[in-house]
Amino acid sequence: VPLKEKLLIQRIRRTADRRGARSGQGIGDDCAVLRVPRDHEVLITTDFSLEDVHFRREWHPPDSVGHRCLARGLSDIAAMGGVPHEAFLSLALPADLPQSWVDGFVRGLLKLANRYAVRLAGGDTAQSPDGVLADIVVLGSLPKGEAILRSGARPGDSVYVTGTLGSSAAALHQLRDGKKLRPGSHLKHFYPEPRIAVGEFLRKKKLASAMIDISDGLSTDLAHICEESKTGAMVYAPALPACPGKDGLTLALHGGEEYELLFAARSGCRIPKQIAGVSVTRVGEIVRGRQMTLATADGNMEALRPAGWEHFS
Amino acid sequence: VPLKEKLLIQRIRRTADRRGARSGQGIGDDCAVLRVPRDHEVLITTDFSLEDVHFRREWHPPDSVGHRCLARGLSDIAAMGGVPHEAFLSLALPADLPQSWVDGFVRGLLKLANRYAVRLAGGDTAQSPDGVLADIVVLGSLPKGEAILRSGARPGDSVYVTGTLGSSAAALHQLRDGKKLRPGSHLKHFYPEPRIAVGEFLRKKKLASAMIDISDGLSTDLAHICEESKTGAMVYAPALPACPGKDGLTLALHGGEEYELLFAARSGCRIPKQIAGVSVTRVGEIVRGRQMTLATADGNMEALRPAGWEHFS
Repeated sequence: VPLKEKLLIQRIRRTADRRGARSGQGIGDDCAVLRVPRDHEVLITTDFSLEDVHFRREWHPPDSVGHRCLARGLSDIAAMGGVPHEAFLSLALPADLPQSWVDGFVRGLLKLANRYAVRLAGGDTAQSPDGVLADIVVLGSLPKGEAILRSGARPGDSVYVTGTLGSSAAALHQLRDGKKLRPGSHLKHFYPEPRIAVGEFLRKKKLASAMIDISDGLSTDLAHICEESKTGAMVYAPALPACPGKDGLTLALHGGEEYELLFAARSGCRIPKQIAGVSVTRVGEIVRGRQMTLATADGNMEALRPAGWEHFS
Repeated sequence: VPLKEKLLIQRIRRTADRRGARSGQGIGDDCAVLRVPRDHEVLITTDFSLEDVHFRREWHPPDSVGHRCLARGLSDIAAMGGVPHEAFLSLALPADLPQSWVDGFVRGLLKLANRYAVRLAGGDTAQSPDGVLADIVVLGSLPKGEAILRSGARPGDSVYVTGTLGSSAAALHQLRDGKKLRPGSHLKHFYPEPRIAVGEFLRKKKLASAMIDISDGLSTDLAHICEESKTGAMVYAPALPACPGKDGLTLALHGGEEYELLFAARSGCRIPKQIAGVSVTRVGEIVRGRQMTLATADGNMEALRPAGWEHFS
């Protein structure tokens, strides 16, 4: 094992040891061993973060790459209404990668992990033939049968989103245009916040009939809900919590990597305007049939097609 | 999502649907949802399989790459005495990869999965900037507190290995020398068999005090047991189940990717000569101190240093 990997493993291991372990054993064995609370079920999600596909080293500082890597997995747990517990990081590094980059990556990842009491419990390391390759596995849990699926929406349900939409994609467009961005001024793109507390609230209060996180863009992710629920949907363009600017509506409809929650709720449900400090906006409804429609500000109806995120490779 | 990824996801999904699901939900949601039997704990392991690091497309047929990818994870479950249940595959593919290669990879992986009733329950796909990148997560379970760790060996324990040692590395040396090998004649390298049944037997009968699988070479993996157990070890060179040939001893001591089990057992334990059709050989003992020693055929003692596998990158 090359020195850099050894250092990384040691560092992860020290971190894992220091944290309170829910499990019997941690890193250092062939497998991690986890205990699951009685009457709970386990949630698992895996997400790649590949250099030049999901991030660029010249655009994203290393701690942002580490943060975003874990945020993708945490957001998937949030979208089920779950509580995240452990993360497993598989990381392949090019031989010429500076140690400071690795340190920054791990720092960004662990800072986010600590905020949600998520333990880095294992993983794999390798030398990469080309570019930084990360794959994150996040495990969470929730009481049996309470997972909020994509398939539970019914015609008549209202559709809601958390937060605002479009600013992550807007930042990406600026990066593509060659602009230098200060990460601290574009938090939504560089340090997106997974909506764990909102997901948990909706699950505990049994408010959401179906849920997904917006990683590929509202149009694409709403299509996933419609597909799994065998419904259509109507989206009210003027209601979307879009960012100002001429492309605001397009970015809100199709911009990816927002990591906001998109959920359906029965029409009788009272949904708070804010949950855990995050705004919640009604943006449409679930309808019969299999079509998605956009109701525009001038009263027209247009077909809404999934046209979300394809990454920037 | 490019067409190839869509096809892959559909294929995995169809396979997942067809199989009996232990879980409430399968692929198609943000997370997979798994139920764990009462009084069991969960085992998790993640392993990269990267082109030109862990395999080469010109050496390894696609079904061998798929088989080896999953075998690495299954072998880690075996090394804890666990039963594997689910696998999650993260797979990034170069744009120009032939569909037939992907089909072969998935076929090899699923054939092995089916043999152990392991369900492919999710994963992630992406386009790879360079080379095939796979990361496999395998989940298993066993009754609480029964995991066989690396840390349980004590001075006086005997050390055993399953099967034979060295033929996987021997095949790799031939490939490196430019030889064409028929995969069917070098099964140990191209289609290694994870020792699930042996691991489960040892756990159920409470025969093993510590266990690891030989993925990095006996010298390196025995050093892991010694490190975690805070012991030394003595290995009897003439006892090793080495393959014939002039480098037999070296390959048996240091050759990687054997996926045999290496375990310690209290001196009073009767270990069968064969378990689940696989030979079991006593090759040494656990000793006080922190040194590893090799007792050679001519009665000499040599220091045994970890000199195992570094992959072939």
